[in-house]
Amino acid sequence: MLELKGIAVSNGIALAKAYCLIEPDLTFNRVEVLDTGTENTRFKNAVATSKLELQEICEMAEHKFGEEKAAIFSAHLLLLEDPEMLSAIEVKINEGNNAEYALHEVSTMFIDMFEAMDNEYMRERAADIRDVAKRVLAHLLGVTIPDYSRLTSDVIIVAEDLTPSMTAQLDTKYVKGFITDIGGRTSHSAILARTMEIPAVVGTKTATKTIKHGAPIIIDGANGEIIVNATNELSEYYVTKQKAYEDEQRDLTQYRSLQSVSADGYAVEIAGNISKQEDVDTVVKNGGDGIGLFRTEFLYMNRQELPNEEEQFAVYRAVLEKMQDKPTVVRTLDIGGDKNLPYLKLAPEMNPFLGYRAIRLCLDQQEMFRTQLRALIRASVYGNLKIMFPMIATLEEFRAAKALLLEEQQNLKNEGYTVSEKIEVGMMIEIPSAAIIADLFAKEADFFSIGTNDLIQYTLAADRMNENVSYLYQPYHPAVLRLIKNVIDAAHRHGKWVGMCGEMAGDEIAIPILLALGLDEFSMNASAILKTRAQITKLAKEPLMKHVEDILMLATAADVEQYVRNHLVVSD
Amino acid sequence: MLELKGIAVSNGIALAKAYCLIEPDLTFNRVEVLDTGTENTRFKNAVATSKLELQEICEMAEHKFGEEKAAIFSAHLLLLEDPEMLSAIEVKINEGNNAEYALHEVSTMFIDMFEAMDNEYMRERAADIRDVAKRVLAHLLGVTIPDYSRLTSDVIIVAEDLTPSMTAQLDTKYVKGFITDIGGRTSHSAILARTMEIPAVVGTKTATKTIKHGAPIIIDGANGEIIVNATNELSEYYVTKQKAYEDEQRDLTQYRSLQSVSADGYAVEIAGNISKQEDVDTVVKNGGDGIGLFRTEFLYMNRQELPNEEEQFAVYRAVLEKMQDKPTVVRTLDIGGDKNLPYLKLAPEMNPFLGYRAIRLCLDQQEMFRTQLRALIRASVYGNLKIMFPMIATLEEFRAAKALLLEEQQNLKNEGYTVSEKIEVGMMIEIPSAAIIADLFAKEADFFSIGTNDLIQYTLAADRMNENVSYLYQPYHPAVLRLIKNVIDAAHRHGKWVGMCGEMAGDEIAIPILLALGLDEFSMNASAILKTRAQITKLAKEPLMKHVEDILMLATAADVEQYVRNHLVVSD
Repeated sequence: MLELKGIAVSNGIALAKAYCLIEPDLTFNRVEVLDTGTENTRFKNAVATSKLELQEICEMAEHKFGEEKAAIFSAHLLLLEDPEMLSAIEVKINEGNNAEYALHEVSTMFIDMFEAMDNEYMRERAADIRDVAKRVLAHLLGVTIPDYSRLTSDVIIVAEDLTPSMTAQLDTKYVKGFITDIGGRTSHSAILARTMEIPAVVGTKTATKTIKHGAPIIIDGANGEIIVNATNELSEYYVTKQKAYEDEQRDLTQYRSLQSVSADGYAVEIAGNISKQEDVDTVVKNGGDGIGLFRTEFLYMNRQELPNEEEQFAVYRAVLEKMQDKPTVVRTLDIGGDKNLPYLKLAPEMNPFLGYRAIRLCLDQQEMFRTQLRALIRASVYGNLKIMFPMIATLEEFRAAKALLLEEQQNLKNEGYTVSEKIEVGMMIEIPSAAIIADLFAKEADFFSIGTNDLIQYTLAADRMNENVSYLYQPYHPAVLRLIKNVIDAAHRHGKWVGMCGEMAGDEIAIPILLALGLDEFSMNASAILKTRAQITKLAKEPLMKHVEDILMLATAADVEQYVRNHLVVSD
Repeated sequence: MLELKGIAVSNGIALAKAYCLIEPDLTFNRVEVLDTGTENTRFKNAVATSKLELQEICEMAEHKFGEEKAAIFSAHLLLLEDPEMLSAIEVKINEGNNAEYALHEVSTMFIDMFEAMDNEYMRERAADIRDVAKRVLAHLLGVTIPDYSRLTSDVIIVAEDLTPSMTAQLDTKYVKGFITDIGGRTSHSAILARTMEIPAVVGTKTATKTIKHGAPIIIDGANGEIIVNATNELSEYYVTKQKAYEDEQRDLTQYRSLQSVSADGYAVEIAGNISKQEDVDTVVKNGGDGIGLFRTEFLYMNRQELPNEEEQFAVYRAVLEKMQDKPTVVRTLDIGGDKNLPYLKLAPEMNPFLGYRAIRLCLDQQEMFRTQLRALIRASVYGNLKIMFPMIATLEEFRAAKALLLEEQQNLKNEGYTVSEKIEVGMMIEIPSAAIIADLFAKEADFFSIGTNDLIQYTLAADRMNENVSYLYQPYHPAVLRLIKNVIDAAHRHGKWVGMCGEMAGDEIAIPILLALGLDEFSMNASAILKTRAQITKLAKEPLMKHVEDILMLATAADVEQYVRNHLVVSD
């Protein structure tokens, strides 16, 4: 028996045989080439064949997993059209290098560049380049990339890294889990596993070296645990645990149509966070009371230019119509930081999380911002729209953004459009300065939504993407809780409501505290809605409120967590 | 008459003729080289000659400006021994390129890399490489770099960028000011001007193109203003202004031996920030009541390995002895962020300001930290030592750091050393979380020192080094003021004292507010001590205190500044 630990990226338990994905041999020699013309042609042919193959995989992926997953391969196709990379390779060939060497040199340079970045997202982009380069190299060498599409029984996939092309070829009917050596929460395998609702453990470092093809495996996605050749006793334990997990998932469905009310009758709203029009369906399916955060930046990503007013209008209208009269909070463009739009050609920054992003950029590039505001205002008549601005640090910013909104509202009326006169205009509270002067903002904003992901990282001055300091990402730090209390109290004194759209809103330990502090709206990934509703219906708010004063005087996040576990998790 | 604007980097007013520093012609052709051996020798000779020349300049600079400035040329000498750069050039030559081209290609690559960084300090390093490459290139081409050492009358230097080698050659007796096209607050010209106490304006973009050699110039360093060919009237105005400035500087000297007491008799401490042992003299000369911040990281910089216990002990002891019984607050190592130690080989980070730095690093690399603590404790018997930890975000961190200190104190006693038993152990308040739970910290720390530079940038989530968002570096933001009040009130409730060692402590607008809030110690650059003491002796604290409540309810930083100008600048 062998036990392995990795990063837990997708919940669930599975028991099946290991299926090891083996890489083809792509070794080659460096050769001096005299006829560089022929070598260039050879390279171009390999690129062309790779493109055809990618187009096929792309269609297959779209069929199997939907548009979003297929987009990965569109990205690969774009890489094969990247003039910077292609011309760098051509230069290398013209210097007398063989195509294999030229490709390897240039792709390695790009891969190293991306991997050196201390940003998980960018590091994952290195995987894309590696995948594409491997495909082209295989064609140059006349090597076939293995076809994994013919599985016949349940398996757990084991691979160094699950490349997007591998996953697209897998017949996922039989795939019950993923285990990889490398990767993180946002790697393709992690995203795919969550979409497929199967367990996955990544970053095990040694899985491919220690797990033999065909070995019986148990994977516990919630804890990042893997057991190879388990004893019968342990296997039985996990079969029972698996059943319990499935039962729990099934039980939660009863909360789909229930109201979000605490055990002692206090109503809250439990809403979903979405990034795309299609996500609305998942929120509705999970019984969400509304949309607490529509991240509109995804409308701007994976494209070559800004989306125009009509395109945006169509999406906003569709979302609002699907949500009917349920509250739908749309956040205006939050780009910059770790989310870049290449076509905006923003300068690289030393500290992008403290940089030119979100409202800072929108107030500076007003045409872009006005287009979004116009699309939103035009869509406002189709549902219950609320608009909020991200990364507000000063009152001047909120006033400037709101002024532009009112100006475009008037412009649209002058142009003959019907617009809603009841659009609530609020703001994200995700910068400490805004949380601290929430009383001053509450006089001018219609509502707040606390973005805990950013608020925590600024309050503790720690980049949560940076492994060396991610231990400082502490949602239960007393300073964070005091800020949240300050925001809720300030809003309520001025008759305004407060939501929360960070990960904390769906956190089991945080929920009793947030309920006690008076949070009005909890917005989260759709998959967490039912579990949260189940928890809240079992909690009584008034008894919880008696603990608030004590909690806010606790010294550390660990003390807070312990206190909640001791006193609050089950309502008293 | 012509007016120009630039970045004000050194105060003062000067009137003199323009002296334009002209660059030699260093154009060359790319040539294919067959005998790469000879070409390599040619390159090595040029490097050797450049090194000899730099050694001479280095000695001259040490003689003229002291060791610190000469260090720039030691850095240039190191660049000429950098194996990465030299071997890259050799590879280029071996590929058949002439030495000029090889040097240009490789140096440009390094320069581009440094310039692309959104960090002023790193961008300035590009200037070093450019300067060195220029020198080697001149020797390859047999071109003489002009000698600027024979000035005979007062001049204002005009240059694209003032390279360190230019400034070292200048006979500074006649130099009354600097104007450059490029550069920022930390460029060599700016630092040099402040050391020489002459005005400087950098970043004018066009000065070298628009100012003719010999033209009469007025430079107003405080406002970043330059006037070429001024009218007689304007010249007279500036002569008067110059005299007033000089009188003011002279008047301030009367405050050197006065006590730091408000007009109504409240005593505060006005201390100096230092980075090096020598800086103590400037603090003493300016009548500082103590050292409020000794930035020990400079002991660790510009060297190849960590300083050992004895080296550190010698410096701490010397500083403490010079300060006698005056309070001397030493901050433990604050490295990381924009201050790197190459020999620690820290991984590059996506957001260094939110990264692995200061106490985070020290608690992780304990041997390094223990060495510093031991050196400090051993020095404690020679003066009035107070130790503080930087970048504290959680109580766990403060407790862990203090525990190590107490452990080493006990170890030293066991080893037979005499140590002070009265060392106060405090912490920087520069992270919002620490400011918010200052009441909890005040139970365990002996004192606080508010580091406003970082506190402001975290509270507003804006990198003050980033030009696009530096407008959000707002010391008067009501949230910042509320945090400061919270810290001072919390400390005083527990009988602890509070200092401030950020730029804000010497800010004319902030001082009345800080005095009213009850700040105990103001620590600043030594050059600002007398001006601050002059201001505080004219302010009455009690009347100011009546304004605090109103100020903290103002909505924006602009409102606060206006309020202070209207009501508080002169005591009422």
